[in-house]
Amino acid sequence: MNLILLAAQDLLNDHCAVVRDPRRLRHLREVHRANIGDELTLGLAGGKLGKGRLVRIEDDLAQFEIDSLDQMPPAALPVHLVLALPRPRMLARSLEHVTALGVKHITLLHTRRVEKSYWQSPELKPEKIHQHLVLGLEQARDTLLPEVSLEKHFKPFVEDRLPALLEHRRGLLAHPGMPDACPRGIDEPTLLVIGPEGGFIPYEVERLLEAGCQGIHLGERILRVETAVTALLSRLF
Amino acid sequence: MNLILLAAQDLLNDHCAVVRDPRRLRHLREVHRANIGDELTLGLAGGKLGKGRLVRIEDDLAQFEIDSLDQMPPAALPVHLVLALPRPRMLARSLEHVTALGVKHITLLHTRRVEKSYWQSPELKPEKIHQHLVLGLEQARDTLLPEVSLEKHFKPFVEDRLPALLEHRRGLLAHPGMPDACPRGIDEPTLLVIGPEGGFIPYEVERLLEAGCQGIHLGERILRVETAVTALLSRLF
Repeated sequence: MNLILLAAQDLLNDHCAVVRDPRRLRHLREVHRANIGDELTLGLAGGKLGKGRLVRIEDDLAQFEIDSLDQMPPAALPVHLVLALPRPRMLARSLEHVTALGVKHITLLHTRRVEKSYWQSPELKPEKIHQHLVLGLEQARDTLLPEVSLEKHFKPFVEDRLPALLEHRRGLLAHPGMPDACPRGIDEPTLLVIGPEGGFIPYEVERLLEAGCQGIHLGERILRVETAVTALLSRLF
Repeated sequence: MNLILLAAQDLLNDHCAVVRDPRRLRHLREVHRANIGDELTLGLAGGKLGKGRLVRIEDDLAQFEIDSLDQMPPAALPVHLVLALPRPRMLARSLEHVTALGVKHITLLHTRRVEKSYWQSPELKPEKIHQHLVLGLEQARDTLLPEVSLEKHFKPFVEDRLPALLEHRRGLLAHPGMPDACPRGIDEPTLLVIGPEGGFIPYEVERLLEAGCQGIHLGERILRVETAVTALLSRLF
């Protein structure tokens, strides 16, 4: 937690914020070992960042005096990430990684090699997803929550939604064995599609290429999804 | 496990290998759902890769008939990674990530912000480290185990070992706020130094820069160590 991310309701007024949830209080105590007078980085969800001084800390609340929230959050990556739904623990970590890296649009997609049971995981509940996004923002000192959408069927996504998403974006399909190496240091709006453990099936690869995605690879090594996601984003942008 | 990594003692002769350990047997049964006649990728630790056919599978062994092991493992990254010792669970995952990415030389270093208790973790036992390295190799279809060394004191490492390591390598110190952006797509021999959660202290940064490292950053965002390691390696090479 390199940032205390404040919700609108945490603000009593422009100069005073109160944090009451056990997770943040515990973090303040155990990791920051915060004392009265300490200056910490604060940010308003969806807004700006600045410094605040801890003026009160008790069992069930911490109160901050805010100087001013006048810094912009770090730049977002110009990417819409379409990720085959990973298994629950890897989903949790991947959401934190990509949020920390600056992704703001995430689609979780069903594909043939995604186990159907993953769609029943408690990790997909909105409050659990929110929790992982917040952890990513707090890590990277960012305030803008990514949007996450769920696509439980491959075909309607590719046929009905993908064409519009690709109208103003370069589509990249990351898949082992594709002809082109992953480009480096691009800054154009991009849609990046990443398959599940075990990869896309050939039919899915064909449909994504037909829709206008360019097939790219990261070399001979087969990476775990969470490693591949970070490696791709870091090389691309 | 995209590769069945064979130890020398698993080979009965050039054309026959037997796997007996519960982890690989369980993986063959539960993940590969392997049946007699299936062809799988095999590799000899420290050697080459090829295909083998499963000819026998019982409760306590699986036997393969090997066609030939004649493919080279994927290229290694030209990097010596010096990583401030992460907390145990992050160490485990980081070892898997960097092994899968192709790192062959890893030094785990003590720094001021590394908790001393981490050095007592069971994750640092040679057999546990070996386990994580093997998982990374199996993931990436590689056969060459990385070498891991432990440096429990910062100063003797920087004064006595670092100068020799930097004689034929470009030294890069990844640290937030350093002047240069992380270079992209280099291929020269490199020593990459990455700090702990919370970063290096200023004294440590000074000593590493004095020793000849170039300070680089990944942008404004502060990343968790395991995200930063993958992001740096993927951007650099």
